[in-house]
Amino acid sequence: MGDVAARLAEIVGEKNLLAGDAIPEDYTHDEGLSLEPGKPAYVAKPASADEVSALLKLATEHSLAVTARGSGSGLSGAARPSENGLVVSFERMNAVLEVDTENHVAIVQPGVTLSELDEKTAAADLTYTVYPGELSASVGGNVGTNAGGMRAVKYGVTRNNVLGLQAVLATGEIIRTGGKSAKTSTGYDLTQLIIGSEGTLALATEVIVKLHPRLAHSATLLAPFTDFDKVMAAVPEIISSGLAPHILEYIDAFTMAAITYTAELALGIPDTVRDASQAYLVVGLEGRDSDRLDADVEIAGGLLSELGATDVYVLEGPSARKLIEAREKAFWTAKAAGADEVIDVVVPRSEMSKFLTRAKELGTASESGVVGCGHAGDGNVHLVVFQKDATKRHALLRGIFAFAVEVGGAISGEHGIGVAKKDHFLALEDPAKVNLMRRLKKSFDPAGILNPGILFDPVLGE
Amino acid sequence: MGDVAARLAEIVGEKNLLAGDAIPEDYTHDEGLSLEPGKPAYVAKPASADEVSALLKLATEHSLAVTARGSGSGLSGAARPSENGLVVSFERMNAVLEVDTENHVAIVQPGVTLSELDEKTAAADLTYTVYPGELSASVGGNVGTNAGGMRAVKYGVTRNNVLGLQAVLATGEIIRTGGKSAKTSTGYDLTQLIIGSEGTLALATEVIVKLHPRLAHSATLLAPFTDFDKVMAAVPEIISSGLAPHILEYIDAFTMAAITYTAELALGIPDTVRDASQAYLVVGLEGRDSDRLDADVEIAGGLLSELGATDVYVLEGPSARKLIEAREKAFWTAKAAGADEVIDVVVPRSEMSKFLTRAKELGTASESGVVGCGHAGDGNVHLVVFQKDATKRHALLRGIFAFAVEVGGAISGEHGIGVAKKDHFLALEDPAKVNLMRRLKKSFDPAGILNPGILFDPVLGE
Repeated sequence: MGDVAARLAEIVGEKNLLAGDAIPEDYTHDEGLSLEPGKPAYVAKPASADEVSALLKLATEHSLAVTARGSGSGLSGAARPSENGLVVSFERMNAVLEVDTENHVAIVQPGVTLSELDEKTAAADLTYTVYPGELSASVGGNVGTNAGGMRAVKYGVTRNNVLGLQAVLATGEIIRTGGKSAKTSTGYDLTQLIIGSEGTLALATEVIVKLHPRLAHSATLLAPFTDFDKVMAAVPEIISSGLAPHILEYIDAFTMAAITYTAELALGIPDTVRDASQAYLVVGLEGRDSDRLDADVEIAGGLLSELGATDVYVLEGPSARKLIEAREKAFWTAKAAGADEVIDVVVPRSEMSKFLTRAKELGTASESGVVGCGHAGDGNVHLVVFQKDATKRHALLRGIFAFAVEVGGAISGEHGIGVAKKDHFLALEDPAKVNLMRRLKKSFDPAGILNPGILFDPVLGE
Repeated sequence: MGDVAARLAEIVGEKNLLAGDAIPEDYTHDEGLSLEPGKPAYVAKPASADEVSALLKLATEHSLAVTARGSGSGLSGAARPSENGLVVSFERMNAVLEVDTENHVAIVQPGVTLSELDEKTAAADLTYTVYPGELSASVGGNVGTNAGGMRAVKYGVTRNNVLGLQAVLATGEIIRTGGKSAKTSTGYDLTQLIIGSEGTLALATEVIVKLHPRLAHSATLLAPFTDFDKVMAAVPEIISSGLAPHILEYIDAFTMAAITYTAELALGIPDTVRDASQAYLVVGLEGRDSDRLDADVEIAGGLLSELGATDVYVLEGPSARKLIEAREKAFWTAKAAGADEVIDVVVPRSEMSKFLTRAKELGTASESGVVGCGHAGDGNVHLVVFQKDATKRHALLRGIFAFAVEVGGAISGEHGIGVAKKDHFLALEDPAKVNLMRRLKKSFDPAGILNPGILFDPVLGE
């Protein structure tokens, strides 16, 4: 192993290699709850695709398991290292290489955080619209999990906003996929295949992201409802209206209480209204023109009232921002409250009401707490589960996931499967598809060095 | 072979099987120019995924090459059958199974045409936004080539508007990918991998497409420019404006003359303006509200003038519709004019001017005609090539494609590679990527029965 360490140090430079006990605890996990940490043998911090290529060649040669790491803010353990493996940390590959105002794209290295990208694109009056809430998240990590977030209802998720990649294959080959154009029909779409593959197919070393004009004006409406079903019934109506909200979130009463308490946020909702509310809708609107936006706010307010909202509050700048930030930080609120798991099931939005009813029933039956909020427009339900007993929790999650699949949904909308949900995925997914995915994995990574144990269990001899 | 025919007839019913000389000429080709037809041994017309599954199992057993066929309107020969192979024609699988107004999706069989889908969604005040021009095209064919079209500048191409598939693998296994939700992060995205694979990976038997609210009002602006570079420079400015055009096309003077002549279309442009114009921009705007649309038209008109348009014509309903239809039919106009090839290179839109200059130089050098129009917002350039000599034409195309790749583009933006552009693709694409794609193909289709010879040359022993 001394030999491996020396060769790794040769590739990235001695000061960019950590080994053994010198590896800080932070590299042993991501933000997935209820997961044991994994102790890697090495953490290498490459500065270029060529260095990543050399690392992967060496890893193949020595059958060293490789885990890519951005900011480590993932929630499914896809950045939890293999025991005695190699972490490739992209913290030094953190440059925004280009903001191209003619093609409305940026080319970024994977270690760039969303807040850094936001700052750089703001200078050009453009914006990258994927906002999974955690602004310290890296673009590379977002590519790995196909991150979504609040604005997906208008702008789509990561895969809708990444046009191309530079990526290093397990063999060390460096490829470029896609490009600066929004379309291509020239062979299989490797960009899309790599996005969401959780570090198991290839390591992205450059990402071409789509940028949109940064609209000058936005407004946030908050609508309490006494009845959860009405919240859910309102969602398709709001989308049909053509108002094109960029935010369309639901927050249940428990979660609203928790996040407003934590954020010390006074929304001016009378106690009587608050106490009678089962859930809230948050509707964000934006536009080029403030007069039109004001008119849209009027229309949306009227529509929400028609759809059964108890009242409609148009939040002013600071309180709107605080509410959105508090919503973005819901995970941390849940963690601080002692949550045992956070999941992000996706179902057709027409099934949300039925799904949530069932999830709560299952929670009650297993004496667990199940509360949450979610991207209502996308049918993406974030549930916080309170249940200390691992066996009970596992059974509860299985029931919740199985019901989601039964109504036409999937286990994860944006967090990924990682290691945390792997056995549910393998139990609930069609074996024909899992086998096909395994063959695809092998096409990319015949030696099986890239994030083994993520998505699938490694098979002997693979 | 008699045995095979009997078993095929057993699967689809005798009257839904054509064999040998009873096969009409229409099944021997698609609309790709300059391609020899291919004579299949059988044409089978299944009515269900189960029948498609049985067909593929039989094809695997007998090493029968399988070509999927929708409406046969493709332009790259991906629906040209293998000699003595089996054509699976989806003409009987042509039902819109569901228009879901809560989730804003439709579930359709692959043989549904775009005009049928448009009619069904109109009834629900929704719309499927992929309009590749040819409304007789099938949704299945669009999935095969990842079709684009004029509205892609606002709504994206097929892959951005298909949320899930039912698909039959070469083994006969029937899988479902994706679903009615706009997001999932649950294993590799098989939907996206199958889209654009030109019938080489799997046969789609159901397609879940995303629908958008059908906006009530639209307007079309036509702006002539004396200088081609100004047309191209105007494009990013229009996009930055936030006006969100749903159409942003350029048409060169030659093509405009041809399509208006063919369509007997009088646009009211004075001769002096017309004679001084190198190219035109067509800008389509749409909205919920007619007053806002009128205001947007004003803004867009002012912007176009600022950007150097000689004049700006706001086309009234009938002439606007006729121009768009004439533009959609540009391929047929070109075909009628004796065009030898139609290509659809894509480049970063900032490179369009440089690319077109080079394409025209190459055309002149080889004594060929090179004219066209294209989806300016996407950098997708449709070039019509007039050159009867196959060797000269091939060399010209190679030069054009190579330059497109050199400036960061790709051979095809929406028509696909098929058989027509295969040798250019194999010559210009990174071998590491081609090899990876071959391995992916093998993961899906180990026996190599699905559209052999499309994208790649079949390898002996595969």
